[in-house]
This record gives sequence, structure tokens and C-alpha cells, in this order.
Amino acid sequence: MNKLPVQPYKGARDFYPEDKLLQNYIFSVWRGVAERYGYEEYDAPILELTDLYRAKSGEEIVNEQTYSFTDRGGRDVSLRPEMTPTVSRMVAARRQELSYPLRWYSIPNVWRYERPQRGRLREHWQLNVDVFGVKTIDAELELIQIAKDIMHEFGASDDMYQIQISSRKLVNLLMAQHLKLDVMQSHLMIKLLDKADKIPRETLLQEASQIFDDVERNRGMKNLEDILNAKTLADLPPSIVGSDSVKEIQILFTLLKEHKINNAVFNATLMRGFDYYTDIVFEVRDKHPDNNRSMFGGGRYDGLVGLFGVEPLPVAGFGMGDVTIADFLATHQLTPKLQPATDVYVVIVGDVLKEAQKIARELREEGVNVAVDLSGSKTDKQLKSAVKKNIPFALFIGSDELANEQFTLKELASQKEQKLSLERVISYIKDNRRE
Amino acid sequence: MNKLPVQPYKGARDFYPEDKLLQNYIFSVWRGVAERYGYEEYDAPILELTDLYRAKSGEEIVNEQTYSFTDRGGRDVSLRPEMTPTVSRMVAARRQELSYPLRWYSIPNVWRYERPQRGRLREHWQLNVDVFGVKTIDAELELIQIAKDIMHEFGASDDMYQIQISSRKLVNLLMAQHLKLDVMQSHLMIKLLDKADKIPRETLLQEASQIFDDVERNRGMKNLEDILNAKTLADLPPSIVGSDSVKEIQILFTLLKEHKINNAVFNATLMRGFDYYTDIVFEVRDKHPDNNRSMFGGGRYDGLVGLFGVEPLPVAGFGMGDVTIADFLATHQLTPKLQPATDVYVVIVGDVLKEAQKIARELREEGVNVAVDLSGSKTDKQLKSAVKKNIPFALFIGSDELANEQFTLKELASQKEQKLSLERVISYIKDNRRE
Repeated sequence: MNKLPVQPYKGARDFYPEDKLLQNYIFSVWRGVAERYGYEEYDAPILELTDLYRAKSGEEIVNEQTYSFTDRGGRDVSLRPEMTPTVSRMVAARRQELSYPLRWYSIPNVWRYERPQRGRLREHWQLNVDVFGVKTIDAELELIQIAKDIMHEFGASDDMYQIQISSRKLVNLLMAQHLKLDVMQSHLMIKLLDKADKIPRETLLQEASQIFDDVERNRGMKNLEDILNAKTLADLPPSIVGSDSVKEIQILFTLLKEHKINNAVFNATLMRGFDYYTDIVFEVRDKHPDNNRSMFGGGRYDGLVGLFGVEPLPVAGFGMGDVTIADFLATHQLTPKLQPATDVYVVIVGDVLKEAQKIARELREEGVNVAVDLSGSKTDKQLKSAVKKNIPFALFIGSDELANEQFTLKELASQKEQKLSLERVISYIKDNRRE
Repeated sequence: MNKLPVQPYKGARDFYPEDKLLQNYIFSVWRGVAERYGYEEYDAPILELTDLYRAKSGEEIVNEQTYSFTDRGGRDVSLRPEMTPTVSRMVAARRQELSYPLRWYSIPNVWRYERPQRGRLREHWQLNVDVFGVKTIDAELELIQIAKDIMHEFGASDDMYQIQISSRKLVNLLMAQHLKLDVMQSHLMIKLLDKADKIPRETLLQEASQIFDDVERNRGMKNLEDILNAKTLADLPPSIVGSDSVKEIQILFTLLKEHKINNAVFNATLMRGFDYYTDIVFEVRDKHPDNNRSMFGGGRYDGLVGLFGVEPLPVAGFGMGDVTIADFLATHQLTPKLQPATDVYVVIVGDVLKEAQKIARELREEGVNVAVDLSGSKTDKQLKSAVKKNIPFALFIGSDELANEQFTLKELASQKEQKLSLERVISYIKDNRRE
């Protein structure tokens, strides 16, 4: 038989213990902040009927990016490319029983068939935070506060990233009223502007000019330049500045300032990829020159729950991926040094394994995490194993130690050794544990 | 457009917050015990090349039970039906760099296309605990200790379950020497005996008789009865009792007794489904009459890592699923009452949301988990929402409270109310938090 390949599936990651430690750190920050705001964790199967994504995720995702197949029962299913359709389905299923505001979070893995590149893999884990049943801008405020608290908890200062804000309503207004585009043209223009920061301005303008009708092109292109050049809400055309959608964004900026969030700015070309957004959208961008790109975002999507045939429900939420966060931490040198959960490695000196296992059990009963060497190797080789695994302490057990009830505890970083009773071993490890 | 269905994919579960709390409880017991024995967490993509399972999981699994499909790049891939081939792949990829004994655990979700039934769903999460690089029976001892500690941590007493032990080597010996079966016949007999506790004895004997050659049938069936009737190792035929594989099982029983594990028994028909086991196998069975069935198990599979073209490595491990454990807890009334992570629900009295949000922030900075009502509803409706969400405390904030800096804190279970300063609110909640 041919030997099997040892690599993981292309574009997805194996998590060796050191990788899993980092991922668990990211997850624990996410969980901690979400729960501090009263969000409850939910989860769902990674397989969904493909129709769920046909309904709202957007064509490109279903036609080009989903992992779709027919199951043995003939159902057309997909690995979830995102969690929002799933959570909408779950809320719709209990629309009447659930009480609102409903605050839910989850950390699902999601799959997209894309060319793997920096910050984008085929599988990533994504914090999803959603609040259901809140019509007012307080929902968006809370979500942005959570996003900021998460960044803060990761050690990020406000100058490292920027919160960009716009609204789908404002964009629709700009498309219809300022650019005079019909629904189909607007759709094309929105898809184009969604790529604005990834393609040269010249290419953007060239492609944009194809979207306008011949008679509208000249004025349309001039008006498009206005939008592209607007740095603040006040730079927008006067007819737009007085609109409700601009007022709503202004209210959000005022609220954010009151809550000491000062790194939020307006961005007229902020579109967010998904078709389902209906109002405010926001995106967090890394400001570091080596990693200057969108990290995560979200917005309001009031229409999705109602698609399941229940009474519609206002919803806002955001998603944040583990790959982009890990890149951000690395770029800003914020990745913490993480330690394995194991406190102590028991090195066996001579033929005392059975007794050592009993001592290990006593330590475990006191809440100490203990690995016992079972290799039968020489003590120096056993010790090397502990060092390689980055375990902080080694405990030597041999017949002398057992007879005297005094055990050598070695701190592997400092090489410091001491002879201690078992009771003192336990208390010393607990007191000097690296948290 | 037709409305979308709200149910999850057939045979898989949605986890509403109360379900996720239970799953997280199960996971935390698993993690806690695995880490107490020095095991480190790893993870891997849920998609693998299907060839990985063709190699060793067994025909039935790949041909009838995997979720397999061709990806957009033409690769034949499967959702993992189990984790053992993946972990073997990962260890093989770093065969030389890793240091042994290597102790790893993971809690992956795995998928099988089966008819959903009690204790068996199409998706479940499974603790996988594996120790690599230990040839001796100390590996099996440690794994069974871990299994027992997990059961103990779940509140199970020894009389609630039984640990059944056998060995693939012993089974092979029984097949070849006692039943005189060739390799193909042994394979069929093992598959049949694997179902021994699920089909009537009569059916078993009928099917078994088809496996023997005509000339061997009478003697074979008599010898098969010996095996089926063997309650202890001593009941086995004399030629088998003296074998190395029986001695090995005897040594394991002695070690288990020394470590105070007294609910382990021999079971000659214990096969375990997977083809890759090479030596000792064990299985934990629920003894409750309503749920009398196999819950989980494992064994030694020394051949798997070497399939990847690296130096072979002795390995033993076991897997334990969340569905069967949840059934066990429910059957034995061991399911704990679990509380949401949210400590307090802020009820808004009048037009003070902005001030209430600031107070919520102060509480959060002190590590209290706070949900603020954003519904704009009347206070009694807000309070109902807190009760429904099973949140322990409600904090009332209105203009009077803000003026006096005294806030009403209500314990929702006892209906007890007190007026406290913010500082006292924080300390009271922390002191009376349900852990």
C-alpha cells in the first residue's frame, strides 16, 4: 500500500498542543468578554441544508465557495460558510418562547473554498456575537463596545486599529439618489466598492464607468468621486447629509464618544460582503502598515429571521475570526507566552513506577496536573522530555526519596532544586504555578 | 420563496444555551481529568482525505457511514468519522521531533451516516485520549484510571458501570487455535461476535455455524460455546489459559486492583468495532437496566502511526462520546443543575439607559457578568425576561437610585430585595454567585 500523506487538508490547520494553547487563549478572551455582557453560548451542527445559504448568504458564496454535497439520503448539504443563517434558523424555531433582548454567542468553525492566503484559510473559527430584539442603535453600540473590550483584552491600544462605520441604508440612498443607479446597477456598484481597498483606484474607476448608462456616465462618475473622497459624513453631498440614515450614524458616533470609543470613523465605501445587512455596518481594521486590512465586522440584519416564516425580529451582530486575530497579535507583538496545563513531570529513578504512580495520584487529588514518565529511560532522558514539553517542574522519585519521604523538586527554568516533603511539594507547585 | 425549515440537519443537534451549558460541563470534566494526567490538547480539521479512513477504520465505516464527497479541487474528502486516524497522521508528521511518552487529548465532533437512535446520532463530540510511545501495560492502566476518574467526577459510583477487558491478541488466538478459523473466517466471526450483545443468542449461533467449514462445524460450534460461556479468564480452554495474551490481561487485572479499580471484568466477546486494535481492548458499560449498553472504550493500536511511512510507535487510547455520557447522567439522575454565566440583569426604570450602561461597565470592570435590558419595556416585563433566562440577580436602576447612589438588588430565586451602594452590589453578587 502507498504510504498516507501526513499533511492536513489544504488550507486547513492541524493544531499541535502549542497551537491549540494559542487558540484556547483567543477563545477564552472571546468567551470572557461576551459573557461579561450577558451573552449566552449556543452551537449547532456544521452541516446545514444548502438552501439555507441560497436564501441569504450571497451568490458568490454558494456558487463558488461552499463545501456542498449530496448526503447518502439525497439531501443537498453544505459545511457552514458562516454562522448567521444558522443562528437565525435557531431563533426562528423558538421565536415565541425566547425572551428578548436575546444575547447569544458562539465560536463555530466555518469553511470556504478559497485560495489560501495570509489571513484567509479554508477553515477558521469565528466568534459570533448577536443581539436579537433590539430595534434601537443601542444594539450597535453594545456590539462595538464588546469588540473594543475584546481588542483591549488582547492588549491592543486604540491607535493600533480603527473602527469604520457606514450603513446599508446610506449606501442604498447614495446609489439611488446620488448615482441614479437602478437596483441591478446598485448591486454591481456595491460589489465593486466592496473591493475598493484591494484594487487600484484606476481599475475601480474603469470598472465603475461600465456600470453607468451612457447618458448618466459623466455625471455619475463625478458623483462617485464625491463618495470616494468623502472622509467624514459632512463631506457627503448636501442632499444626503440631511437624511435619516446619516443622522443615525451621527447618533452612533455621539454615543461611542460618550462611551470613550474614540477610534471610530466614517467610511462611505464600507459595504461588508453579505447581502443580508439592512442598516448600520461596521468593520475593524488593523492600522499596522504590515497588516493594514479589515479584521472583522458586522452590522444589522433585520430581515433574516422572518425568512423562516415567523414574525420578523431586529438583529445586529458581528463575527471575528481566529486567523485574523492571531495575525494581529503577531504583527503587534501581542502574542502571549503560553504554558501547557501540566504542572509537574515525574522522573522515575529505578524500579519504583508503581509507588510513583501512587504519589502521582495523591498530587492529582490535590489538583496538581501530573505527567508520569513511562518510558523506562535513564533519568536525564526523562528530564529532557519534561524540558521539551515546557513543563515547569520535575519531581524525582526513587527508593531513597520514598524511604526518606523527601523528594527533589526541580524548577526547570531556573534549574533550582529543593528537597521537600510531599505536602510541601504540593503547596510549592501551587504557589509557584504559572497562570 | 418557500419558507426555510427551522430544524437542524437530521440526526444532529442544535445547542440552545441550556444544552450548551450541559455540553460545556461535560467538556470541562473531560478536560480537567485529562490535564490532571498531563495530557495536552490538540485539534485538527474536520475534513480529511477519504484515503485516511480507507487505510484503517474498517470497510463498513468508509463504504456505508462516512460523509464523503469530492471537493471543488477534485479531492476525495470525508468528514471525520473518528479521530484516531487523524491523530496518528499528526504524530507521524512529527515522529522525530516529538518526545515520548506523548500524551494528547482532543474533543472533536465526528460524523457518521447512521439511522439516528438512542445514544447514537449522526454528529457527536468525542473525548479522545491517547498515549504514544509506551509499550508496557502501564499505558492501558493509565487510560483506565482516567476513564474511572472521569466517571467519578461525573458522580458515578463503581456499581453503576462495569469495565470490560479483552485483547485482540487473545481473540486472534481463540479464532486460530481454538476455533481453527482461517483469516477470512476469523474476520467474519469477529464481526459477528462484535454484535453478540445486540442480537439473540440463537441468531448468533445460527450465523456462526455458517462461518465454519463443514468438517469443522460440530467441533467449532462446541468450542464457540466454551468462549461464549467463559465468565473469567480461568474458564477459557486450558491451551489458551497459559498463553502470553491471557497472562498480560491477568497482569492488568492485578494492576487495576492495586490502584483500587474493582469493577473491571473479562469479556471474551469484546471486540470493539475498529480494525486497527492490536492488543488489549476495553469498554465501559452502563449497568443500569434502562441503559444497559456499551458507553465507550478503547485499546492498543500499535500499527497505525507506521502506516504513514515512519518508524512504528506503540499507542493506546480511548474515546468517549457526549451523547452516551449525557444519557448515562440522565439515567442515573446525575445531570447537574447548571446556571448561565450571566450574574445580573439590569432593569431600567425610566429614561436612564445611558447612565445604566455606565454602571454596567463599572460592574463588568469588576468581573461581574451583566446583561442590560434594551427592550424599553415596562419593569415587570424586563424582570420576567431575567427570570426566564434563569439569571440569579436583577439590579434596578432609575433616577432615584442614581440620585441616592443606592440600588435595589433582587435575588430572583428567593425574591429577597436589598438597597445597596454599587460597591456592596458588586461584593454581594461575587460572594453569592452560584458556581
